[in-house]
Amino acid sequence: MPLIQIELDRELFDSLGDKLSDAVHQAQIDVLGIPPDDLFQVFTPHRPGELRFDAGYNGVDRQRLLLLRITMVHMYPVATKQRLYRAIVERFAEAGVRAEDILISVVENGYEDWYAGRL
Amino acid sequence: MPLIQIELDRELFDSLGDKLSDAVHQAQIDVLGIPPDDLFQVFTPHRPGELRFDAGYNGVDRQRLLLLRITMVHMYPVATKQRLYRAIVERFAEAGVRAEDILISVVENGYEDWYAGRL
Amino acid sequence: MPLIQIELDRELFDSLGDKLSDAVHQAQIDVLGIPPDDLFQVFTPHRPGELRFDAGYNGVDRQRLLLLRITMVHMYPVATKQRLYRAIVERFAEAGVRAEDILISVVENGYEDWYAGRL
Repeated sequence: MPLIQIELDRELFDSLGDKLSDAVHQAQIDVLGIPPDDLFQVFTPHRPGELRFDAGYNGVDRQRLLLLRITMVHMYPVATKQRLYRAIVERFAEAGVRAEDILISVVENGYEDWYAGRL
Repeated sequence: MPLIQIELDRELFDSLGDKLSDAVHQAQIDVLGIPPDDLFQVFTPHRPGELRFDAGYNGVDRQRLLLLRITMVHMYPVATKQRLYRAIVERFAEAGVRAEDILISVVENGYEDWYAGRL
Repeated sequence: MPLIQIELDRELFDSLGDKLSDAVHQAQIDVLGIPPDDLFQVFTPHRPGELRFDAGYNGVDRQRLLLLRITMVHMYPVATKQRLYRAIVERFAEAGVRAEDILISVVENGYEDWYAGRL
């Protein structure tokens, strides 16, 4: 049950929401091996001025900010996480979001920290 | 200071917001034993298409998605967490939200990770 | 890469958003020593009824709720966190937000839990 939360400009959500949903989900299937029906995504579109960033931090040319937060069980090696970031970024780039504009943040918890429709 | 964040359809918030607020708060009082004035809730209503889920994951018939996130200090046994989920789900069902439509995700931190109105 | 997420009344964001952005960023520079270009902030303005709180919890006179969430790498001593809270609260007070109305919640992760524009 990785939970995906994406904060992005409303214009970006309106134009690319479906593609971004598919992209991050496929990346999880490919890299984490989750079942295809393990889909929990929350998109929060924002108005201008609500997403704030520096255009040059970390040595890249940043033009906008798309924040992707992942909450998932602590079970994946660091190398797997890095492959996940790469897969997400590559698929987002195909969908039309620049790699430089993406921020990913992972927070981990345990199996006991989830309820998904039944006890 | 458990912090409750609820992401749900705007229509659901507009019709049931007060009841859901009371339901999750009472569940915390009953199971965690928090004082009744320890109330911090953030509701984020969403438009159609912003909450994405699979209708069948985990073997249930899911019709919509209500995400309830809890941030709280690492101090509760697993059994207490499970009783909390049960209490929330039962009270939400009474308020009109199906148990199958709820996703709960807990993230824990420490006492030193909070500021609540005074140092 | 501390990530700052602020949930507040829309009226407060519209009137004080720029000042609050500067305030929390300067507090991080002063206390955590982050570089000035390490800026990632997400403001989520809310309508009346979406932010729920108790007016007296923790022995203060609370009039509204501004929630500031910080996601950052686990590396700072407790004393540093407390200095950070104090710096944020003092700067927010200068900007026009009462110390009593602020809730801060920190969640920590690791260096491997971030992607910021490049691998």
